Amino acid sequence: MPPTPAHEPRPSDPSRPTAAARFAARTERMTASEIRALFAVASRPEVVSLAGGMPNLAALPLDTLAGQVAEMVARDGQVALQYGSAQGVPALREQITEVMAAEGIRAHADDVVVTVGSQMALDLVTRLFCDPGDVVLAEGPSYVGALGSFSAYQARVVHVAMDADGLVPAALAEALDRLAAAGQRAKFLYTVPNFHNPAGVTLAVERRAQILELCRRHGVLVVEDNPYGLLGFDGQTYPALRSMDPDNVVYLGSFSKTFASGLRVGWALARPTVREKLVLAAESATLCPPTFNQMMVSSYLSGHDWRGQVKSLREMYRDRRDAMLDALSAYLPPGCRWTHPEGGFFVWVTAPEGVDTKAMLPRAVNAQVAYVSGTAFYGGSGLGGRHMRLSYCYPTPERITEGVRRLAGVLEAELEVLRTFGSPTRSTTRSAPVRGTQTPAPDTT
Amino acid sequence: MPPTPAHEPRPSDPSRPTAAARFAARTERMTASEIRALFAVASRPEVVSLAGGMPNLAALPLDTLAGQVAEMVARDGQVALQYGSAQGVPALREQITEVMAAEGIRAHADDVVVTVGSQMALDLVTRLFCDPGDVVLAEGPSYVGALGSFSAYQARVVHVAMDADGLVPAALAEALDRLAAAGQRAKFLYTVPNFHNPAGVTLAVERRAQILELCRRHGVLVVEDNPYGLLGFDGQTYPALRSMDPDNVVYLGSFSKTFASGLRVGWALARPTVREKLVLAAESATLCPPTFNQMMVSSYLSGHDWRGQVKSLREMYRDRRDAMLDALSAYLPPGCRWTHPEGGFFVWVTAPEGVDTKAMLPRAVNAQVAYVSGTAFYGGSGLGGRHMRLSYCYPTPERITEGVRRLAGVLEAELEVLRTFGSPTRSTTRSAPVRGTQTPAPDTT
Repeated sequence: MPPTPAHEPRPSDPSRPTAAARFAARTERMTASEIRALFAVASRPEVVSLAGGMPNLAALPLDTLAGQVAEMVARDGQVALQYGSAQGVPALREQITEVMAAEGIRAHADDVVVTVGSQMALDLVTRLFCDPGDVVLAEGPSYVGALGSFSAYQARVVHVAMDADGLVPAALAEALDRLAAAGQRAKFLYTVPNFHNPAGVTLAVERRAQILELCRRHGVLVVEDNPYGLLGFDGQTYPALRSMDPDNVVYLGSFSKTFASGLRVGWALARPTVREKLVLAAESATLCPPTFNQMMVSSYLSGHDWRGQVKSLREMYRDRRDAMLDALSAYLPPGCRWTHPEGGFFVWVTAPEGVDTKAMLPRAVNAQVAYVSGTAFYGGSGLGGRHMRLSYCYPTPERITEGVRRLAGVLEAELEVLRTFGSPTRSTTRSAPVRGTQTPAPDTT
Repeated sequence: MPPTPAHEPRPSDPSRPTAAARFAARTERMTASEIRALFAVASRPEVVSLAGGMPNLAALPLDTLAGQVAEMVARDGQVALQYGSAQGVPALREQITEVMAAEGIRAHADDVVVTVGSQMALDLVTRLFCDPGDVVLAEGPSYVGALGSFSAYQARVVHVAMDADGLVPAALAEALDRLAAAGQRAKFLYTVPNFHNPAGVTLAVERRAQILELCRRHGVLVVEDNPYGLLGFDGQTYPALRSMDPDNVVYLGSFSKTFASGLRVGWALARPTVREKLVLAAESATLCPPTFNQMMVSSYLSGHDWRGQVKSLREMYRDRRDAMLDALSAYLPPGCRWTHPEGGFFVWVTAPEGVDTKAMLPRAVNAQVAYVSGTAFYGGSGLGGRHMRLSYCYPTPERITEGVRRLAGVLEAELEVLRTFGSPTRSTTRSAPVRGTQTPAPDTT
């Protein structure tokens, strides 16, 4: 929205410093994410958006929920509408330990901290550990919301390569050694092991112990972010990193993908020394998470077949994944590669050499299809320009097919220009070399 | 809760650095507030708690609310349960401008940012403006949640004296000059002008322009926190600082005291340059505030006589204020003074010289009455030891009377010991001199 002129600053004294001059240093790196800037155009109905990561709520039992929430207000409104503990509602924290048990986690409710979405947990973990200039290791590409939090605390992100089996242990070892040689140590490794956003790959089970061992040996904490873990299309789950090393892993979970994102209920699980600080940080961030939302989730978990609901979500997302993979095979020009997600929301596409997906985006939107350029997932480093994230979570299978068909047309035209002129038109990203361990493109076809 | 031994860190390698060694510098000042530590004992039913600041929700129309929320879920569930904009739901932002109009604020919905309680707004404003070591000016005493946020960003708080008419302009001028002489400038003045927490006083209207002029001249932003503004017992409202200087004031509001704290819906109003950064900071903090809660508040505001509800809240709190002031007059020993709030939740009591309210608290809880020691509102500086905050918002008038009677007994015993031995028993605070402009005790009787 454009600023309203009437509210623009009108300094009465020209020598008075402007508000901008008084911002803290950390605000210099606060800029709108590429994804955010895109939403306005991508939300026009004629555009097939393969850009957003919004869960599909069509299958939610709204009538049942309406009854449950009305009963909760009538019966427990005095509690639900009142301040609660900064750590979260005890009954929900207990239920969260049951949810996590599906991925092999044995935990005590005392060590769970409920947050306003797992984004808040991510923000608070960064607040606890990162001084300005500290290093965070993260997959390349990495979740854009995490990169935003790291940036807000002036942490420096070192990306580590992935392949079809997720984070590459050899690349992690190399990054850790390189940091050690420079006299540095990362504060933590941030990783999305299951059905990665944006890469659509899953960390192979045999790599998990290796990665934990590497981090432990180097004194580097692991922050495991697992919003999609229960959305494996065959119902498969993987052992959480937290289940294999309770001491050195902070685990982040969320109900945004398995129930309702608009309630903003997520959590962190951490050992007591970290959990105590998390609660204090949460208290100064919001006093307490909304009691109402926590009780709603709690009543949903106890009064509804939530596992059955997750199963039907998996099936819906699997159909959409299938539609996308089929369309990619059918329509994309030779030289394109993409990942084959076994769960979650996203496919990561690698275009042929020379294509600049960020520069191409306006032409794609013109052709009524939207995606997110790979550059968004490297925090403005210029990497990722050959890649794009396609999401299949929200549109119908028919729309997905049509979107990919349109995208294929745009890519064809782009490649035609490249063949004719040898370079992309109107490039807006710096052309970073995309190779070696800095080429974290999961590139299975 | 005590840590569960099974989850205690068990480092496999003694040379491995502990997590504590890897925390960021800012965590050193993250400690549990005195208020928080108190809640466990004060919540025992036999204790009359004059400590908490929980709004009284007894008058909320729960059946009406239950119907409204059920209808919202059934009709708009797909929106209410989905991610929303980081800035907040547009319809609610529009309604918020109408709520603020009661205090003379003319604002555009584009400049409103909805937050998870106004605590989050406070946290984000501090994030935007405070580098470590930066100075924040705040009333002495000041809201404990604000002090927590300032501490989390390593800001240094300079307290400015109040009297029965709120913040003292001469004391503010002196503080600003002293900072200027030292080559420093505060980032902002944090102030609760109406029905102050914890002091129970209101900034006189004629002082408002003076304070704004002083801040403007020194290039110091004003952060106006106004959760109680509509709770003036005679229905009186005061012109918001924001209404008098739209450029240089960031205004914070909340539905926690006028509707329901457990929904955690607050807001900030700021000019565009600041508002844009606030939205970016909010995005990395929580992605977006809960859509569900915003729509609930919106439907409450449009579908219910919320002004009538606020009026009945005012009447309820006035009765309780009266009960407390009557009891203080009837029971408290000579030499005690207290403020006479015309709205809000709190009375600030000054005990006779020599009394140490922090040391006295265990004896008070033993006598089954709880309060918050004045030291909590000075961020551990040792100031405030002669003072205590009494809240009348939550207990019934009968309980308030009984609580004050018990407190009077404890004070009598304390004074008796002082007369006999000349010093308080078991003092736990350093005995700060309480006088001059560092004596911000609003001391009207």
